[in-house]
Amino acid sequence: MMVSLVILAAGQGSRMQSDMPKVLHPLGAVPLVVHAMRAGRALDPARVVVVVGHGGDAVEQVVTAEDEGAIVVRQTEQLGTAHAVDQARAALAGVAGDVVVLYGDTPFIRSDTLEAMIAARKTHDIVVLGFEAADPGRYGRLVTQGARLARIVEYKDATEEERAIPLCNSGVICADRATLFDLIAQVGNDNAAGEYYLTDIVALATAQGLSAGVVTCPEAETLGINTRAELAQAEAGFQTRARAEALENGVTLVAPETVYFAQDTFIGRGAVVEQFVVFGPDVTVESGATIRAFSHLEGAHVSRGAVVGPYARLRPGAELAEDVRVGNFVEIKNAELGEGAKVNHLSYVGDASIGARANLGAGTVTCNYDGVFKHRTEIGAGAFIGSSTMLVAPVRVGAEALIGSGSVITTDVPDGALALGRARQEVKPGLGKRLMDRLRAAKAAKAKG
Amino acid sequence: MMVSLVILAAGQGSRMQSDMPKVLHPLGAVPLVVHAMRAGRALDPARVVVVVGHGGDAVEQVVTAEDEGAIVVRQTEQLGTAHAVDQARAALAGVAGDVVVLYGDTPFIRSDTLEAMIAARKTHDIVVLGFEAADPGRYGRLVTQGARLARIVEYKDATEEERAIPLCNSGVICADRATLFDLIAQVGNDNAAGEYYLTDIVALATAQGLSAGVVTCPEAETLGINTRAELAQAEAGFQTRARAEALENGVTLVAPETVYFAQDTFIGRGAVVEQFVVFGPDVTVESGATIRAFSHLEGAHVSRGAVVGPYARLRPGAELAEDVRVGNFVEIKNAELGEGAKVNHLSYVGDASIGARANLGAGTVTCNYDGVFKHRTEIGAGAFIGSSTMLVAPVRVGAEALIGSGSVITTDVPDGALALGRARQEVKPGLGKRLMDRLRAAKAAKAKG
Amino acid sequence: MMVSLVILAAGQGSRMQSDMPKVLHPLGAVPLVVHAMRAGRALDPARVVVVVGHGGDAVEQVVTAEDEGAIVVRQTEQLGTAHAVDQARAALAGVAGDVVVLYGDTPFIRSDTLEAMIAARKTHDIVVLGFEAADPGRYGRLVTQGARLARIVEYKDATEEERAIPLCNSGVICADRATLFDLIAQVGNDNAAGEYYLTDIVALATAQGLSAGVVTCPEAETLGINTRAELAQAEAGFQTRARAEALENGVTLVAPETVYFAQDTFIGRGAVVEQFVVFGPDVTVESGATIRAFSHLEGAHVSRGAVVGPYARLRPGAELAEDVRVGNFVEIKNAELGEGAKVNHLSYVGDASIGARANLGAGTVTCNYDGVFKHRTEIGAGAFIGSSTMLVAPVRVGAEALIGSGSVITTDVPDGALALGRARQEVKPGLGKRLMDRLRAAKAAKAKG
Repeated sequence: MMVSLVILAAGQGSRMQSDMPKVLHPLGAVPLVVHAMRAGRALDPARVVVVVGHGGDAVEQVVTAEDEGAIVVRQTEQLGTAHAVDQARAALAGVAGDVVVLYGDTPFIRSDTLEAMIAARKTHDIVVLGFEAADPGRYGRLVTQGARLARIVEYKDATEEERAIPLCNSGVICADRATLFDLIAQVGNDNAAGEYYLTDIVALATAQGLSAGVVTCPEAETLGINTRAELAQAEAGFQTRARAEALENGVTLVAPETVYFAQDTFIGRGAVVEQFVVFGPDVTVESGATIRAFSHLEGAHVSRGAVVGPYARLRPGAELAEDVRVGNFVEIKNAELGEGAKVNHLSYVGDASIGARANLGAGTVTCNYDGVFKHRTEIGAGAFIGSSTMLVAPVRVGAEALIGSGSVITTDVPDGALALGRARQEVKPGLGKRLMDRLRAAKAAKAKG
Repeated sequence: MMVSLVILAAGQGSRMQSDMPKVLHPLGAVPLVVHAMRAGRALDPARVVVVVGHGGDAVEQVVTAEDEGAIVVRQTEQLGTAHAVDQARAALAGVAGDVVVLYGDTPFIRSDTLEAMIAARKTHDIVVLGFEAADPGRYGRLVTQGARLARIVEYKDATEEERAIPLCNSGVICADRATLFDLIAQVGNDNAAGEYYLTDIVALATAQGLSAGVVTCPEAETLGINTRAELAQAEAGFQTRARAEALENGVTLVAPETVYFAQDTFIGRGAVVEQFVVFGPDVTVESGATIRAFSHLEGAHVSRGAVVGPYARLRPGAELAEDVRVGNFVEIKNAELGEGAKVNHLSYVGDASIGARANLGAGTVTCNYDGVFKHRTEIGAGAFIGSSTMLVAPVRVGAEALIGSGSVITTDVPDGALALGRARQEVKPGLGKRLMDRLRAAKAAKAKG
Repeated sequence: MMVSLVILAAGQGSRMQSDMPKVLHPLGAVPLVVHAMRAGRALDPARVVVVVGHGGDAVEQVVTAEDEGAIVVRQTEQLGTAHAVDQARAALAGVAGDVVVLYGDTPFIRSDTLEAMIAARKTHDIVVLGFEAADPGRYGRLVTQGARLARIVEYKDATEEERAIPLCNSGVICADRATLFDLIAQVGNDNAAGEYYLTDIVALATAQGLSAGVVTCPEAETLGINTRAELAQAEAGFQTRARAEALENGVTLVAPETVYFAQDTFIGRGAVVEQFVVFGPDVTVESGATIRAFSHLEGAHVSRGAVVGPYARLRPGAELAEDVRVGNFVEIKNAELGEGAKVNHLSYVGDASIGARANLGAGTVTCNYDGVFKHRTEIGAGAFIGSSTMLVAPVRVGAEALIGSGSVITTDVPDGALALGRARQEVKPGLGKRLMDRLRAAKAAKAKG
């Protein structure tokens, strides 16, 4: 069956104490709203509609960066969840199949759970996601009759008997598109807050002889984020699970508690990750690679046998082939390093391609920026770049070329050539000591005063 | 009412297993004794007297660096707390108003608590700070009669009935100066340890018809530090509270458990602090600034919109204006960076002022030290400094000047000029490969033997 | 009494999900099997035999690197623990005294415990190490009769009564060599797994009138490692103990939870270790030295008064004399630094000896590798090396010599000389701004076009 998603992401999240819209706060290095989008992606949705409000431009930018086909609609006034979903009416006009309503601040819903909801639609017209809360507190309760959901009752409207129900409402809901919007059109706002509640559609549906059902999931999946403290706890929980999964998958984590994963980090079996490592978004580390301590990776690919760090920074576009070695105090950005290439110390390699087995000495810099434009550096296979070489891009160094230490390379170097840009060493006997003695004497005179 | 402070900081702290005086051990990057001084500062004290003993010179240096008006007096023999306070008698002679006695190894007393003690002095001649201990153990007990404190009884001298009292003595005490020193003069040392106990003044006071009262505070405030394990626990407690406060104040901490604050760190609402960041003393980060992972800041000011790190080290005197960018493996010391200036990679900027929008390439070094003296570097607004430029101070680079990569700049560069200090690139076709082949052949020959 | 060790290290450890043999996984930066070897070393063993199987070559390499006298024998088929010990029969032929059987995946056995077993051999022919398990679960049980051990019963073969015995079998066993191998020769494999169990020798011994006894130790010592999660827990436990010991020994750990020790790290009383520090194997830090935040040390020696970091990387062979200063983004490898030498910023010093009080400026590099061979750099006492100096090894800089910033030094510099290798600074008035304006115009044209 075809499925579309509506993701509600309009709230300000004032309890976050933040100018940033709540759904853009990151969890596992990825904005909250993107977690919801990725959970829904497993359903292979025909259409994805994200309802934005506060900070809408910023949210739109993130949403379309994640999925360029996503449709962003605006909710200019916040009049309740039914009103929010109703903003997607036009965007979904004429689309066949089901709609699943998700929330941009509820990042832990699993794809399996959503698939179970879709499956339950064979039996029911509306499917609501529920959970048994350890402390049901003020959650809305799901009132069932046999296998059917009769209605959703808000805590404040519930009787004592209803409050004793442990089954709570997550807010996630699934129905045929036409049914969903028909029901939403009937929702009123005759309540204390004057809002249109999506939950009301269940009672409306059953009154019309439609069938509503419940699918349940663990409470942890339904966790919503409202404060920075909750976000920090959610992040801690996310990291705990990500570390345990990595261990189960055969990754060596020397000190799991010091490794921070992104939501999409992939690490192969038998890879080693040392202490104090941060993975930003979009990193793949293959089996048998090693990430040493104090390394920071974003948007990078590390192949089998490569060793990174300690103190290596891989930025987006870093592509390390097999057996590459990126050592300490080295930054790689938008650059491919061929098999066995080495950049061991204190270097910046940006906008470059480095050939197989090339060796870049300490202090090598690709001078990729002229103050206005960025340019590329190409280094051939087996080239040997002496320490503190400045490669002023655009520039090409040929295969098996040799560059003398301390050179500034501004024009291309042919394959196999030696290039040097270096002043002759001059030595003035005794002068070093005389100059230093003079400075020391000046200091002593000053001190006397 | 005028208030003066006497802070007892003479103890050796032999259980610390340390050559450093106990009160100089840091908590939140600030020595213990400074915590006590800062708590007392809220009372706007007329005079601050610190009683030092073991390691007195070192303690004096820290005390006067924190407050140049503080008076340091020596206790040459350690004969008890009353004797210690008595060393402040001369320094406080003729000073009107109250005296509050604090302890250099008790860093958590809050200013509010001290203000409550001062307020209670309207009712009582002597005010003692007490606390209800979860496990009263061997603390001295406060024996009350109605609203009055009758006496303080040491645990070893207490009856079973007195030992059942949960109200314990923190040692912090407040009285009119004249009264305090009159009472101290009457304290004897007829006890097992042969010491003069400050606690004895309560019984002396009530025997003379003076009134003593109790103000209470949470036990956590009265925590004293005696061992390194206790110090480590106190540090952990301090950090836990500092992290929670930052979150409440609207700071984004991606992984709060990996951020270490100093006692005086200030971070504005909406600032972001990533994983593994250490704040040393005297750091201010404004709203909307970002401190990326693996950064280390001391004595630095980071303005709105600035981005620091990952792997940035800001040392004392680093002043970053709005939208400055200090990137990875960069150290800034005693230097102002103007609005929008960028130092993105592998640089050392010390004793310098960098103009707005100036761009320093990778590997830039301000050569500020000639082996004897330190000198300053000035770089004008909009200047572009090529990679691996050595700026041999004292030197000035003008606004919108351009320096070629790999230059050593020893004389001033006018506004808008191009400066270069670079040998011509020479290329010897084929020689690179021949040299490397020769080395490889030598190795092969060696291996054969 | 003479003692020999047999260490069983042949298992594949398939539950580790790893291509690396289980006993090579590190705990406290040292392979598991080395922990067992070091525990046994306290007995001053006459002979050490390690039985290897899966990944035997790799294990052999580690074993002989730790103890070149150790004898490595192969168990080609894994037929049980008695069979494994039997592989050591030839290697121990004719050796007098006792044999202690240890396990390569059981790293926490203490030397004291082994000494207690040896002492108990005065009373018994065979001594087995037992422990009282908090949850005995499926461990084998030690069935005793008075002071004697009657037999070891596997859980699955035990009666209800036997299962109620809390005393469990660690597998560690000690006996006279001749007795041990005589008994092993009698062990059969008539059991479900078809394996030869070492535990069976106890029943064989008692049946022959020999006496068996039990020595007990805390359960934590007998902890074996079978999965990565168990290894991570063992590592966490190891680190917790190492941190507590350091604090007890008078080391200042600002944030103990962020410091990672190796099994053999030695830190002197009064040394300071800041946040986020990793100690690899073989590091000694003397009293009064300071290791600042974000530092990484392996195979290094740091003397009294030296200050390392933040962000310093000391690699094997780094020897820092008293009062040396190694600053941020500095890597030291196989190099001795004399008393008071300073390498404060962004430098690589490898294969070098640096004289006392020498000062290496920011960006100094010892160019130790020519692409084939490694060469040494020598710098004399009191030399001053300007920033971004390339020292092309082999090269020698004399005492009190002075090198100008940005020089490439390829030939020796005499004592007291000044050496320079630097192009003259040229200045072209106005050209910098003109060039930048031209680039900006090009960009603007592009944007329009």
